[in-house]
Amino acid sequence: MTAATILAEAAAHPFDEALTLKTVAEGVYEGVPSQLYWNMAGPFGGVTAATLMKGVLEHPAMRGRPLAQTVNFCAAVTPDPFVLKVVLERDGKSTQHWSVRLEQAGQMAANATLVTGPERDTWNAQPSQPPTARDAADVPVFASQALTAWFSQYEMRFDHGAPNLDVASETGLIRAWLRDRQARPLDYLALASMADAFAPRVFLMRGVRAPAATVSLSTYFLAAPDELAAQDVRPILGEAQPRAARHGFHDQSVELWSDAKSLLAVSHQLVWFKD
Amino acid sequence: MTAATILAEAAAHPFDEALTLKTVAEGVYEGVPSQLYWNMAGPFGGVTAATLMKGVLEHPAMRGRPLAQTVNFCAAVTPDPFVLKVVLERDGKSTQHWSVRLEQAGQMAANATLVTGPERDTWNAQPSQPPTARDAADVPVFASQALTAWFSQYEMRFDHGAPNLDVASETGLIRAWLRDRQARPLDYLALASMADAFAPRVFLMRGVRAPAATVSLSTYFLAAPDELAAQDVRPILGEAQPRAARHGFHDQSVELWSDAKSLLAVSHQLVWFKD
Repeated sequence: MTAATILAEAAAHPFDEALTLKTVAEGVYEGVPSQLYWNMAGPFGGVTAATLMKGVLEHPAMRGRPLAQTVNFCAAVTPDPFVLKVVLERDGKSTQHWSVRLEQAGQMAANATLVTGPERDTWNAQPSQPPTARDAADVPVFASQALTAWFSQYEMRFDHGAPNLDVASETGLIRAWLRDRQARPLDYLALASMADAFAPRVFLMRGVRAPAATVSLSTYFLAAPDELAAQDVRPILGEAQPRAARHGFHDQSVELWSDAKSLLAVSHQLVWFKD
Repeated sequence: MTAATILAEAAAHPFDEALTLKTVAEGVYEGVPSQLYWNMAGPFGGVTAATLMKGVLEHPAMRGRPLAQTVNFCAAVTPDPFVLKVVLERDGKSTQHWSVRLEQAGQMAANATLVTGPERDTWNAQPSQPPTARDAADVPVFASQALTAWFSQYEMRFDHGAPNLDVASETGLIRAWLRDRQARPLDYLALASMADAFAPRVFLMRGVRAPAATVSLSTYFLAAPDELAAQDVRPILGEAQPRAARHGFHDQSVELWSDAKSLLAVSHQLVWFKD
């Protein structure tokens, strides 16, 4: 493959198509929520998170790579065009602090704070261990094509907790191998999206598909770019688990592991659910 | 005690004194970082988190109670006065989305997003179990008075992982009973602060006290006001644990449990550390 071919193929990937932004001014972009990643009543939250991140990554003042992102889902995102506004709030030696607003019809529908920073080689440790799971090749691919648009964009292999609304799961635990259905090398945008690819745990815990939506999502990116490059297009291992559900909200945490047993990212969210 | 006496005592608590804000306009406050909760090179992050939350709680448009808060520590907070600016970004039926800026000398030193919402009674579940720990009364109080100002404001009983820089801890795990040294009934401000009361895990993991600071802190409040009221001034059980440290940053998660074995809040942060 020539470089031109590779670039053409990358541009053709539905994820990149969904994240297309048009620069209007420095830090101001226009875009349209992609039907390719539509959920039941709006775009898949993971793609919204990646869209907010992309605004920062395209900003000329950005140095380094994503470290921490929080996305707040403030209101339903409609199929209409949006404006993305990116501001570098504070620029330091080891971190840059960004804020991002996604506005539709002049109102904020989602916002994010993002911390970026240059790479440093330091002491390292990994007290956490990856979950024990069968090899991806030994786990059947889940038939997601008939479900929502966004779900069919991912290839998921459920080692534990495959979606089954007939049976309630007390733990709400899911463990799955995950990658784009159409192969795409792993990057921070993909991680930001995949961090939200594990459905609200309330579906599992109750065994019913009641209305539920992410309210706030925070993801920490522990992996350096070379680790993501090494993972390439192979599936990563995700494990998602809630701690408690009360008063119409529950938390859940997601760990995303490389197949070399390195923790690439960890993500936490608060989910609203209807009784 | 008369109501007046109770109010006078509450006002006299160092935590409430530290959180004192002067309203300048709707959503605009002035304050001074409190020396009562000073850390080594700035105020204790937990009190900064509580200060940002307090600006929202004092806003006349606020309904309900805190659900999710993310605080970004953008630059060193100095002992100088600050201005707090609170904006209700989006007001919905089940959630309100707030943003808060803490500015010193016209520059943002810290910011927060906060989601609040009215109480709803719903289906509930608690897949997580509280950690096994000795009763608070059976764990000696840690002698924190000689250390930093903020640390001496808390009474901590380390069931596991008492600070000891002579011994590196591979897991970085701490489990401790925690309350204000001067008794104060538990509320959301206290939880926001206590969520940051477990020192950067890198101290434990490396067994050295190298420079480290929280970059971003997200806390989810699962408990309703009546649960906090029931906990009153008795110690809560906290457990803090990191997953991975790489490239100058590590994550850590904190669970805060009532003594009735209910998960009150869960908190996650990304910590910067110097090699």
